[in-house]
Amino acid sequence: MDFAPSQRSLEYQEKLLDFMDRHIYPAEPVYAEQMAESGDANFDPPVLKSLKAEAKARGLWNLFHPHESEEWGSPGLSNLDYAPLAEIMGRSPQIAPEAMNCNAPDTGNMEVLQLFGTDEHKKQWLRPLLAGEIASAFAMTEPAVASSDATNVRLRMDADGDEYVLNGRKWFASNALHPHCKVLIVMGKTDVDAPTHRQQSMMVVPIDTPGVRILRGLPVFGYLDREGHAEILFENARVPRSALLAGEGDGFMISQARLGPGRIHHCMRSIGTAERALDLMIDRAQKRVTFGEPVANRANIQDWIAESRIEIEMIRLLVLKAAWLMDTVGNREARVEIAAIKVAAPQIALKVIDRAIQVHGGAGMTDDFPLASFFAHQRTLRLADGPDEVHKRTIAQVELRRMAPGWHRS
Amino acid sequence: MDFAPSQRSLEYQEKLLDFMDRHIYPAEPVYAEQMAESGDANFDPPVLKSLKAEAKARGLWNLFHPHESEEWGSPGLSNLDYAPLAEIMGRSPQIAPEAMNCNAPDTGNMEVLQLFGTDEHKKQWLRPLLAGEIASAFAMTEPAVASSDATNVRLRMDADGDEYVLNGRKWFASNALHPHCKVLIVMGKTDVDAPTHRQQSMMVVPIDTPGVRILRGLPVFGYLDREGHAEILFENARVPRSALLAGEGDGFMISQARLGPGRIHHCMRSIGTAERALDLMIDRAQKRVTFGEPVANRANIQDWIAESRIEIEMIRLLVLKAAWLMDTVGNREARVEIAAIKVAAPQIALKVIDRAIQVHGGAGMTDDFPLASFFAHQRTLRLADGPDEVHKRTIAQVELRRMAPGWHRS
Amino acid sequence: MDFAPSQRSLEYQEKLLDFMDRHIYPAEPVYAEQMAESGDANFDPPVLKSLKAEAKARGLWNLFHPHESEEWGSPGLSNLDYAPLAEIMGRSPQIAPEAMNCNAPDTGNMEVLQLFGTDEHKKQWLRPLLAGEIASAFAMTEPAVASSDATNVRLRMDADGDEYVLNGRKWFASNALHPHCKVLIVMGKTDVDAPTHRQQSMMVVPIDTPGVRILRGLPVFGYLDREGHAEILFENARVPRSALLAGEGDGFMISQARLGPGRIHHCMRSIGTAERALDLMIDRAQKRVTFGEPVANRANIQDWIAESRIEIEMIRLLVLKAAWLMDTVGNREARVEIAAIKVAAPQIALKVIDRAIQVHGGAGMTDDFPLASFFAHQRTLRLADGPDEVHKRTIAQVELRRMAPGWHRS
Amino acid sequence: MDFAPSQRSLEYQEKLLDFMDRHIYPAEPVYAEQMAESGDANFDPPVLKSLKAEAKARGLWNLFHPHESEEWGSPGLSNLDYAPLAEIMGRSPQIAPEAMNCNAPDTGNMEVLQLFGTDEHKKQWLRPLLAGEIASAFAMTEPAVASSDATNVRLRMDADGDEYVLNGRKWFASNALHPHCKVLIVMGKTDVDAPTHRQQSMMVVPIDTPGVRILRGLPVFGYLDREGHAEILFENARVPRSALLAGEGDGFMISQARLGPGRIHHCMRSIGTAERALDLMIDRAQKRVTFGEPVANRANIQDWIAESRIEIEMIRLLVLKAAWLMDTVGNREARVEIAAIKVAAPQIALKVIDRAIQVHGGAGMTDDFPLASFFAHQRTLRLADGPDEVHKRTIAQVELRRMAPGWHRS
Repeated sequence: MDFAPSQRSLEYQEKLLDFMDRHIYPAEPVYAEQMAESGDANFDPPVLKSLKAEAKARGLWNLFHPHESEEWGSPGLSNLDYAPLAEIMGRSPQIAPEAMNCNAPDTGNMEVLQLFGTDEHKKQWLRPLLAGEIASAFAMTEPAVASSDATNVRLRMDADGDEYVLNGRKWFASNALHPHCKVLIVMGKTDVDAPTHRQQSMMVVPIDTPGVRILRGLPVFGYLDREGHAEILFENARVPRSALLAGEGDGFMISQARLGPGRIHHCMRSIGTAERALDLMIDRAQKRVTFGEPVANRANIQDWIAESRIEIEMIRLLVLKAAWLMDTVGNREARVEIAAIKVAAPQIALKVIDRAIQVHGGAGMTDDFPLASFFAHQRTLRLADGPDEVHKRTIAQVELRRMAPGWHRS
Repeated sequence: MDFAPSQRSLEYQEKLLDFMDRHIYPAEPVYAEQMAESGDANFDPPVLKSLKAEAKARGLWNLFHPHESEEWGSPGLSNLDYAPLAEIMGRSPQIAPEAMNCNAPDTGNMEVLQLFGTDEHKKQWLRPLLAGEIASAFAMTEPAVASSDATNVRLRMDADGDEYVLNGRKWFASNALHPHCKVLIVMGKTDVDAPTHRQQSMMVVPIDTPGVRILRGLPVFGYLDREGHAEILFENARVPRSALLAGEGDGFMISQARLGPGRIHHCMRSIGTAERALDLMIDRAQKRVTFGEPVANRANIQDWIAESRIEIEMIRLLVLKAAWLMDTVGNREARVEIAAIKVAAPQIALKVIDRAIQVHGGAGMTDDFPLASFFAHQRTLRLADGPDEVHKRTIAQVELRRMAPGWHRS
Repeated sequence: MDFAPSQRSLEYQEKLLDFMDRHIYPAEPVYAEQMAESGDANFDPPVLKSLKAEAKARGLWNLFHPHESEEWGSPGLSNLDYAPLAEIMGRSPQIAPEAMNCNAPDTGNMEVLQLFGTDEHKKQWLRPLLAGEIASAFAMTEPAVASSDATNVRLRMDADGDEYVLNGRKWFASNALHPHCKVLIVMGKTDVDAPTHRQQSMMVVPIDTPGVRILRGLPVFGYLDREGHAEILFENARVPRSALLAGEGDGFMISQARLGPGRIHHCMRSIGTAERALDLMIDRAQKRVTFGEPVANRANIQDWIAESRIEIEMIRLLVLKAAWLMDTVGNREARVEIAAIKVAAPQIALKVIDRAIQVHGGAGMTDDFPLASFFAHQRTLRLADGPDEVHKRTIAQVELRRMAPGWHRS
Repeated sequence: MDFAPSQRSLEYQEKLLDFMDRHIYPAEPVYAEQMAESGDANFDPPVLKSLKAEAKARGLWNLFHPHESEEWGSPGLSNLDYAPLAEIMGRSPQIAPEAMNCNAPDTGNMEVLQLFGTDEHKKQWLRPLLAGEIASAFAMTEPAVASSDATNVRLRMDADGDEYVLNGRKWFASNALHPHCKVLIVMGKTDVDAPTHRQQSMMVVPIDTPGVRILRGLPVFGYLDREGHAEILFENARVPRSALLAGEGDGFMISQARLGPGRIHHCMRSIGTAERALDLMIDRAQKRVTFGEPVANRANIQDWIAESRIEIEMIRLLVLKAAWLMDTVGNREARVEIAAIKVAAPQIALKVIDRAIQVHGGAGMTDDFPLASFFAHQRTLRLADGPDEVHKRTIAQVELRRMAPGWHRS
């Protein structure tokens, strides 16, 4: 149980911290201004392009990618080595991950294309994604069924000669409103009569496929995120047989493979977000004076600061343990820990952010500070990839089996 | 301690429920569509005008107003009688209160003008406010100082001949971006050398006064509310001496008088909002199926429903008690209860709404349901009119004195 | 919804407060000393006898009893009128209720005997109970089955000629170790083939019946309460047919009738216990100095005081509402409110007591203050008469039906 | 940050687990019976003697001791290596630690004697302590002053010729009622005019010193622990100058040195206690049937199980980190983490135990299960060695300094 980052990870941390200080934090107000001026929620602000170039030049590109590659600049870090880097990116969650090509859902999509894509998929979609030239979305959740149970998806993918015909409705397809978004990875059902976990397939669908209609971007609280969380209608959208990832019926398996790293990346970033909220809380508490003394002198505020520190320390260690387990014994053996951090990381981040908002007074609700936006987006993480309750159920079932006669957790 | 509503209140409840069912709820999607189509966050949607006419016609107008008046249609209800009505309005908080001319901050401003305004103020501003023809804002909070301590305000109101010259910056002046907003009630300092609570004065300032500049509307969790929470700059804005409400140095006193009813109205509406969230939670839980059974069958969700019911019942009774005390012994004697509901009502509403969001999954974060908006606006109530911590401090001080030798709570 | 106590209740409050000040509180250390000196956990301390005489003399006797009677000195108060009196008794829960013959389970047993007992039962058991000459226990819960479901009881009551033969095991029969305990009211099954809710019967069993063996007193967090929570074995214990309360198969019905008032009395006393804990917390916080200032000056402690006050106010009102409903529309119509207070009152009391313990430091865990004992006994109330979860389930089911199409809570 | 236990630690874990299974758990009912039969709360039950012999024979002795020694059988484990062993002992906290000579306060006293004792102290007291032949107490806390501030102690240690004369009152001197207790380590003031942190001294005081009077054992909730938490009066108790540990004025320094390991040992054991409570909860939930199905099938109980697992995992990792820091950079550098686990470990254990009690129903409050005792003793840990609030204050101060301009946590 060695959570120490490698020398390489430490070097990347140093480089990354420097990049944050010199480029990311200073870019935040610029970004806000460019977005506001554009009047377009899905605008691609020029500052992001500069940041991407700078990140590439500094070798801070595709850090998430588990495979080392000179071609696309990824160092091939382990989950444990990537964890502190993702955390740091999480301190500026709207900008930093995308600036370094480490943002969801592109990261998960790149992994899926790498593992299950054809050569053609890789050439056409994976390469430009790795280069940060295009964006992609993942169309899995549907408005009509509970996303907590992935076997529920209803979108039909009916074989018809050399093609599949797609009919159905997806939503929360993040990135689909990104100006650069060119491709969707879509989960649907190819065979409703197959066994429950073999009915689903996953396909690569160009966003401009006739019959694919992006209906709207969904707000999160009042935020219409730049990348967009799209509701998409598929009406007789036709893709060739070669759109299939892996084989027919492999959709559920791919979705599971995709989730492990995706979840842990989110949790890592949640910690960075919580750390930033704590910094903001402390800073405000030291500067704000009420009833004759700085808010920071008050014992209730000190309690909040201490509780935040304690909770952050605990969840960081659990995320590191999950990462270490994924690296050493694999995602399946790490499933309790992955479920645990999926539940605990956003909850802890939300508690810290909420306290920080309270210390900021009304200002904490506005966009003069990133706290309200942090809150809204951490709140989504208690629902995305399955609500807390589903993950707790997973953990409980392992515990219940642990105590059943003759059973040992493998 | 008789919390039973009077016969009149019961009649109004019946009329109000009918109005909600026939007009307000059906207007919600229309409102949303008109707002979206306008592309203008501060648009005045036509549906609101119709609702106001209908409300007036039904005698559901100015129900909040403590004084009975045929002229402006207010029945002169006690706080206790108004409480259940405000609660019902709180079920559709964006529309119902304004449709019946019972929305903050106009209600508080009308009371202030009634109590402390000159005949001229009443003629020019109070009358059209009572008629719902204009809107008004209240400019109290300042970005540079903690709003939890009202004596902190820094905006200067310097006497200069027959005029006062106003210089300073306000924010969270709600309603100031309302297309009908014509007047601001502004708190500032006329004499920085007076005793702490006599430095402040309150003035009536037409919104088109030269030197008054509305800088921007502040978002609340990403929501740019229709009425607007404005940041306003006062640069050598000149008003006549007659702008003064009551006398010089009476500002703090007026602010205290204004707060009692304002706070309790908010709390009443919070309960209605919580009830609606609970209804939505139950409805969703009954309709949504996961792992083979309705979510409503699960014991954890049933616990949430029960806890929500318990909490709502408790806070409703405490709000009624505060209302009853205000009616019978006055705001000052009710100060512990007013502080208590100011803390507890939004917190309970937030808990209920958060559970409802969780049951709704991703949909709960969007505007397909009002839950995320409910959450954002209830969250502001933990800060508006002083953060929770200030009100708890008030309560604690009364308790500490209660136990001090020889002291009895008067 | 008029919660105002009647004039009579107010007069009793005044008399009761005087009795508490002059006799009960001063008796607490005496009681502790007499118990300690006796070396017998179930000792009957002489001070209690004096207190009973004094209470009788002051007309503070059988206040709980819903029927007015000169004979046994009960004023016949409504639940609403009794509520503030029970609350005051709850400030000294070990002594005050028994000193005034208002202690569980005798109160519930007296009501059951009154309603369902034969003339013989009344003469032999009810009269001396009303006079405070004997004590009684209620044998319902069994170690082998979940008490949350009253139909679960397994003790057999087999008819055999003119007798019933009882076999089974009960526990948590409170009062059974009381030196004055003479009689048990026992729930068991007379017909296992009857419909689920008609299998049970209730019988009056003299404690010295051969075959009734009191095995031990159960500790509660280390406390061996004076009255005792007994485990009792019934081995071929024979009682005459006349032992039956009401008829065969009426046991479940009687148990339901018994529960309503019992639960609300517990909740009323919980509030008094919480009030006393709050007083102790404030007193200690004012007297204890750390790091150069009284603990009471610290904002975190002030928050605890305020939160305690808020929570106590809320639960008191809900208990009053439940009492008022029981008085006006009956126990069945009050079932949601009874379930709600059963859940909320002990939880709130526990929160307040826990904070008070924390403010007392180590002393709070000892018997130098009553806080640890308060905690232990309030904790039992989250389990006695069914755990919280069962009551929340009841509430949730009413809520779920409320929202079902075409259903209205009657 | 390598938390992996060494090979030696793993071997000890295996041996310890075997000892627990074969001897400790089976001894629990024997211990309970011997204690009950004795009728003496401070009885030394024979089973403990056998367990000690067995532990010694198995080489499971003095595992806590940081120094390796063949003489007294301690393996000289690091904090990190000892952590999982202490956790396992914590599963049977009343018996296991003492059976292996790893129980507080003897462990802390042994460390203090080792570091600061004279040769004579070591010969007379340390050696038999290491051999488990005698017991010792630590007399620090005083009833009259807040123990959260160690400089507060008032007991006087006045030099008088070759002697010191001790006058004052201590309490919560655990172990002082142990039949084998022979010696007290006492903190007092030798010079009230010295600088605040140099006024205190620590002395070795034989328990039979004239003028040392053990007044009573303090209950914790209702538990009168076997080892006893004593209130002790010192009236002109005279000890020779050689009783001094280190030098005059070193008392505060010694107390700080003593606290680090003591706190972490408590936290380690808390985790073991929580694990056992979780096992009991799961076991009960699987065996208990209500409303037709095992309690373990209910989603609310599954949530409790999962939340318990998540919280235990988090706090275990934080304790390991604190241990690792103490081993690698020292107690001072680990002070935030030590404070953090001091706050979080008992709180998490209490949450888990409370849920387990709830699942057990009434049985959970009795001594048929160890849960109520676990709860009472974990509750003390939120107060012992300073209440939570003091440790949170420590953490907050480090955080506030971290954000102060130009400051970095060393």
